Amino acid sequence: MSETDKAPIDFWFDFSSPYGYLLSERIDEVAARFGRKVRWHPILLGVVFQSTGSAPLTLQSPARAAYWLVDFERSARFMGVPYRHPTHFPLPTQNAARAFYWLHGQDCALARRFAHAVYRALFVDDRDISAPDTVVEIATDLGVDRNSLATALQSPDIKARLKNEVDGAMQAGVFGSPHVIIDGEPFFGADRLPQIEKWLATGGF
Amino acid sequence: MSETDKAPIDFWFDFSSPYGYLLSERIDEVAARFGRKVRWHPILLGVVFQSTGSAPLTLQSPARAAYWLVDFERSARFMGVPYRHPTHFPLPTQNAARAFYWLHGQDCALARRFAHAVYRALFVDDRDISAPDTVVEIATDLGVDRNSLATALQSPDIKARLKNEVDGAMQAGVFGSPHVIIDGEPFFGADRLPQIEKWLATGGF
Repeated sequence: MSETDKAPIDFWFDFSSPYGYLLSERIDEVAARFGRKVRWHPILLGVVFQSTGSAPLTLQSPARAAYWLVDFERSARFMGVPYRHPTHFPLPTQNAARAFYWLHGQDCALARRFAHAVYRALFVDDRDISAPDTVVEIATDLGVDRNSLATALQSPDIKARLKNEVDGAMQAGVFGSPHVIIDGEPFFGADRLPQIEKWLATGGF
Repeated sequence: MSETDKAPIDFWFDFSSPYGYLLSERIDEVAARFGRKVRWHPILLGVVFQSTGSAPLTLQSPARAAYWLVDFERSARFMGVPYRHPTHFPLPTQNAARAFYWLHGQDCALARRFAHAVYRALFVDDRDISAPDTVVEIATDLGVDRNSLATALQSPDIKARLKNEVDGAMQAGVFGSPHVIIDGEPFFGADRLPQIEKWLATGGF
């Protein structure tokens, strides 16, 4: 099988997920080293957590919440990714996710650039990416038409698309962010990147 | 400061914790490479979870439970540690933990060998380490007097010692297994071993 025949990797994440952000800064380059593309799927963890009975990391017990705040920043330094914990956290991400899927319908590469820009807006520049205006502004900085996107964010089609993606994620066994599936094998967490690399290098271990 | 002056590392774990077992097979050698000793502290996650509102990994939602079963075995292969998921899981570990602290009061090195033997009995040989008889048998194989240990397992002193250790762990912010603290810096999970190594090598990053 030539490299171009290899199946793409699936990468699910919530735009409010620190470890999703960390992995988003590395997953494409790791996959490319092994001739793989990555399909990005923003989802809404709030919906997933209703189904699985989970809670955001910083809304868990005081001891757990305190730890994760330390670990977000240390893991970012360990991976060499810039990180500033956001003022607004966690926050709703349906506008950013809808915008991603609308852009993706037109231009996959543009949607990818938009996803990076949203994540960096939240985790580097501390912007409130829950606001539709912020989402539209991030996209217009990439050359997207402001009015078309603002209208699209409210369209039933794009809402349905996001709902389908969240449903599909749960059907695939996704319960958190980031969640990667390679040829049926699931990897949860940015800390599984070394295992992902080994899996891609060896075809499974 | 000479290497012998460096403070020991604290390592908390439950004998029923797969990732605690995985880290137990590596933590001493990693610490020794940087001139550090490790203080081992078996605790009872059931007590900790009552306080933090957590649940054992395989008793969480079906999607999460299915994932952890895959990840236990894959993480073991990744770390080069033998692993067979136990028939009885999770299981009560107060007898093993009490035996550890009783042995530790007499011979630290023996207690360490006993801890390794308990973990391997559960995660390699699939023995039911919740049973007092099994715990006593594992210890007698290491030369411990059977009757002394069997009596000690029921002594108020050793029960109080274990309770103090669990209380102390929670006061130190421990909420899961394995949990390591190095000079005040907390690391949760066997998957933080690369960060632990870097922390020891650099004195913090």
